[in-house]
Amino acid sequence: MSNESVRVVLVNTTHPGNIGAVARAMKNMGQSELVLVAPRSFPDEQAVWRSVGAADILENATVVETLAEAVADCHFIVGTSARGRRIPWPTLDPRACARQVLERRNSGQQVALVFGREDRGLTNEELQICNLHLHIPSHEDYTSLNLAMAVQVVCYELRMLALEGSLSSDAQSEWDAPFATAENVERYLEHLEQTLIEIGFLDPVAPRQLMTRLRRLYGRMNLDEMELNILRGILTETQKSLHKSSTAK
Amino acid sequence: MSNESVRVVLVNTTHPGNIGAVARAMKNMGQSELVLVAPRSFPDEQAVWRSVGAADILENATVVETLAEAVADCHFIVGTSARGRRIPWPTLDPRACARQVLERRNSGQQVALVFGREDRGLTNEELQICNLHLHIPSHEDYTSLNLAMAVQVVCYELRMLALEGSLSSDAQSEWDAPFATAENVERYLEHLEQTLIEIGFLDPVAPRQLMTRLRRLYGRMNLDEMELNILRGILTETQKSLHKSSTAK
Repeated sequence: MSNESVRVVLVNTTHPGNIGAVARAMKNMGQSELVLVAPRSFPDEQAVWRSVGAADILENATVVETLAEAVADCHFIVGTSARGRRIPWPTLDPRACARQVLERRNSGQQVALVFGREDRGLTNEELQICNLHLHIPSHEDYTSLNLAMAVQVVCYELRMLALEGSLSSDAQSEWDAPFATAENVERYLEHLEQTLIEIGFLDPVAPRQLMTRLRRLYGRMNLDEMELNILRGILTETQKSLHKSSTAK
Repeated sequence: MSNESVRVVLVNTTHPGNIGAVARAMKNMGQSELVLVAPRSFPDEQAVWRSVGAADILENATVVETLAEAVADCHFIVGTSARGRRIPWPTLDPRACARQVLERRNSGQQVALVFGREDRGLTNEELQICNLHLHIPSHEDYTSLNLAMAVQVVCYELRMLALEGSLSSDAQSEWDAPFATAENVERYLEHLEQTLIEIGFLDPVAPRQLMTRLRRLYGRMNLDEMELNILRGILTETQKSLHKSSTAK
């Protein structure tokens, strides 16, 4: 079991379809352990249908009677919560929460993420079982977050954090051609300038800001060698066409 | 309109319920501008039902026929994509993407986030309209991410970043020319293609990947209108030179 694995606990879910959607959201983000506290209906065809390809999560799900049972062997319990409890509890957003969860997991603790009922979340008693409260910062005009969406966001943060170490921050590491050297870009710009003079677009006597603007433009493109070859090819072909015509005259 | 506001574009959504779920996900995260490209059925009761309290997003949604129409006035277009395109495109995860989007918004650009079909995402042609590709790092065993979930994750990242409030003021706010719209870049690419055929660099019978590579290149440049004018001027001048020579023969 990898270090970002946590137990997802759903309390009193009313609509079996939501359980399926949660399973799918979990599997998307590499989570697999689902515990259901007294769901209204489970197993249920609606759940399987909504889970799409994540029925294995449902098959391996455990059903228990109380939240206490669901988290009995856990060391660290996070409960999702709307704001404004009477007694303030340590409350974090999903990103800060993911960090705490991973720290606990790294030190070998079992962690549970607890999600409440579709209509009214977790009760105060249930929230008091939790070590930490998690609040997803939905917009103040519309805070009603779908159950599976909440699971998705929290599991997404866990996955992002787990990937942080293993992924290079550079998206371009998967680029298909080596990037062009400054020297080659410089040669291209000289070639471009020459061609622009030949086609009559650039007047070498009054060049104005033209090459400066083109230099800025090509400079920020981060060209790769293949692209540079294409661009040079266009210039060469333009020159050939001109030359062919003029010698034919 | 606040700076994290973007246009959410859904292409050919099959199930109206998904449009409703997207509206809800958007509203949760403070987004409101929805454009639908040729949905199978809209308006639709199923969409309203699934949107729960976000029916206002649906009422204000615009329906258009093509993706090009949906993004014609946009300066920066982000398309969601699975990995593994033949020609790699600049691809970021939702967090890095949110940062770029907010930087663009801060410099006054209109940004679109484009989401594809439920079953097979965006086509290669559609992805080539986009300046940047966004990949949600779902687990490799199960990458099929529900449409509304994808929208939720991306809008969540925008909201987290907006709440951070720590975004440095952007260098591009001091740019000296307005940025080019997608429509004008598209016209330039058509002009370029035509010119490449005229100079004999592009064989319309065997175009290979040439225009795709040039599209990717110009798409990631974030051209301003003055630069676009220069580039168009070069093409026009090239065509004139060719024409002059050939009529002189």
